[in-house]
Amino acid sequence: MSDERPEFAFINWIARQSGSRTEVQLGIGDDAAVLSSGGKDWVVTKDVITAGVHFDAKTPLALVGRKALAVNISDLAAMAAQPCAAFIGIVLPKSMTRSAAEELYRGLQQLASEWDICIGGGDTNSWDGPLVVSVTLLGLVESGQAVRRDGAQPDDWIFVTGPLGGSLESGRHLTFTPRIREAETLKQAVTLHAMLDLSDGLGSDLFHLLDRSGVGAILNADSIPIHPDVSKTLPSAARLQHALSDGEDFELLFTVSAADGQRLIERPPPGVELFRIGEITAAPGASLVVDGEEQTLPRSGWSHGFGQTAID
Amino acid sequence: MSDERPEFAFINWIARQSGSRTEVQLGIGDDAAVLSSGGKDWVVTKDVITAGVHFDAKTPLALVGRKALAVNISDLAAMAAQPCAAFIGIVLPKSMTRSAAEELYRGLQQLASEWDICIGGGDTNSWDGPLVVSVTLLGLVESGQAVRRDGAQPDDWIFVTGPLGGSLESGRHLTFTPRIREAETLKQAVTLHAMLDLSDGLGSDLFHLLDRSGVGAILNADSIPIHPDVSKTLPSAARLQHALSDGEDFELLFTVSAADGQRLIERPPPGVELFRIGEITAAPGASLVVDGEEQTLPRSGWSHGFGQTAID
Repeated sequence: MSDERPEFAFINWIARQSGSRTEVQLGIGDDAAVLSSGGKDWVVTKDVITAGVHFDAKTPLALVGRKALAVNISDLAAMAAQPCAAFIGIVLPKSMTRSAAEELYRGLQQLASEWDICIGGGDTNSWDGPLVVSVTLLGLVESGQAVRRDGAQPDDWIFVTGPLGGSLESGRHLTFTPRIREAETLKQAVTLHAMLDLSDGLGSDLFHLLDRSGVGAILNADSIPIHPDVSKTLPSAARLQHALSDGEDFELLFTVSAADGQRLIERPPPGVELFRIGEITAAPGASLVVDGEEQTLPRSGWSHGFGQTAID
Repeated sequence: MSDERPEFAFINWIARQSGSRTEVQLGIGDDAAVLSSGGKDWVVTKDVITAGVHFDAKTPLALVGRKALAVNISDLAAMAAQPCAAFIGIVLPKSMTRSAAEELYRGLQQLASEWDICIGGGDTNSWDGPLVVSVTLLGLVESGQAVRRDGAQPDDWIFVTGPLGGSLESGRHLTFTPRIREAETLKQAVTLHAMLDLSDGLGSDLFHLLDRSGVGAILNADSIPIHPDVSKTLPSAARLQHALSDGEDFELLFTVSAADGQRLIERPPPGVELFRIGEITAAPGASLVVDGEEQTLPRSGWSHGFGQTAID
C-alpha cells in the first residue's frame, strides 16, 4: 500500500507493540477504544508534557516518552489504583525524524510494559511547533476504594514515601519510579485517609490536600527528608527550601490516623520508605516547626518558571 | 489566597462549571477522576488539535474549544456510544490572556453542556509555543454493543449520513453537529455492521473500514452526496474530488445487510439523513463507478497538508 500516508505506518508500528489486557476489549484501530471491568472503578488521569517546560532540547527522547507516562502513573499511585490502559497524543515537530519519534515512543512503551499497561489508542500529529506529549491513563481500583485528597482528619499523621528536593537538577524527574507498589502495600496495611503525589513540591502540594480536606497541618522541619541530590554544602535553610519547593519528587504524601501511623512506624511494611513529617490540625493553614519555633508555611511551591500547573 | 499561582484560579474557574454525572464519582480536584458504571462498557477516544493544523490564528477561540471536543464526540458517535466525561489538556501560548483562555474553554464547555458531558479533569500549561488542545472523551455503551470498524460483510450496503466536501473552506469543520443522535437512532432501527466518522475524507476513511473488515467496496459516484459548500460552478469531476477528499465532514459512514439497507430506504428513521453510496464486496480494494465505468479508487484522501493524522 505504497500510497498510504507515512503517519499510518508509524501508527501501525505503534499498534503492533501495544500489548493486550482483558479490560481493553478494543484498542488501537477503531474510532475509540472499549474498556470494561467487572464491578471495579475506572480511575482516569491526564497530563500533558511540553518541550521547554517539562524537558528540554537535550533530554533524550526515550526519557521524554518515559516521563510523559510516568507522571500519569504517579497520579494513579496517588489514588492507590492500578494502571491499565494509556491513550497517547503526540504532536511532533515536522523536523523530527521517524526514528526520533520511535525513540520517544520506545521509552514510553518500555515503561508501559514494566507496569503491564496497554496502549489503547491516541492521536499523532506533526506541526511547526515544538514537541508535545499528552497522555491519558486509565487505572482500576476496587469499587469505592480510590484514595482521595479530601479525607484527611485532625490529628492524622502525615507521611511521605521518600526524600525530597533536587529532582530537576539531578535529572531524577526523568527516571523516577512511580509509587504504585508502595500505595498498594500501604492500602493493605492501613486505612489511607488522604493521599497525593508530590509534583509541584511539598510546600505547594500539601495545601491541595489541606484545602480539599478542610483541615490544616503542622510540619516538623527536622523530619522532612532531604534528598541526597540536594547539595550538602548548602546552609540547612536552603536545603529545606529545596525539599519544600523544587518539585517533581513524585513521592506520595498521605495521612493516616495516629493509631495507624504508630503501626507503620513500629512495623514498617516491606519495600516502602516512610518518613513521618507532621500532623493534621483542625485549624486551617500550615505551619513549620524550625528549631523549635513555629513558622507559617506560605502557599508557595516550586514553579516550573513557565507557569506550568495541572488541573489534577 | 493571594499567593496562589494564577493557573489555579483558572482551574478553579473551570471546576466550578464542569457539571456532574452519576458515572463521574470524582471529578476535577484530585490526582485523577473516578468513573464507574453499572455493567456498561466505557468507550474512550482522544484527539489533539493544534494551531496551524486544525485551526488558524483567525479562528475564534470559542470555536477552537468547540472543535476540540466535537471531533471527539464524533468518534463516540462512530461507535454508537453516548458521551459522558471529558478530560481536557490545554497548552496555552504565554501571550494568551486569561480572558482568551476562558473564551476557548467556554466554547468547549457550551458543547459539553449540550451533550450532557461532565469535565472530569485535565491539565493546563502555558509555554512559548502555539496553542494545543488535547481532549480525551469517555462514553458509555451497553456491554458489547459498540459498533466497530471491522464488521462489514460482503453485499452490505454502504451509507453516509450527510453530504460531503467543502467543510474546511466553509468553516463547517468548526460548527458541525456530531452524529450521536443519528447513530443512536440507526442502532435502534437496524443492525449496524461497521461504522466510522469521516474525518480525513470518504476516499481515505473508507479504506480503514475495508482493511479492518477484510473486504472491498464498490461506490457509485452519482450516489455520493456533494455538500452545497462545494462550488456548483466546478466541473462534476472536481466536485466529486472535493466530496471524496476534502475531509472533516464528520458524517457517519456505515454498512448494514442488504435487508436492513432496504428497510432504511423504505422507512427512513426520523431525523437521519441517509445516502446509499455503494456496496461491500468480498474482493479487497475499492472502485468507483463513474458514468457507468468502473474505476479504481486510489488510497488517497484529503491531507491537512501538515501531515496530520489520527491513531483512531
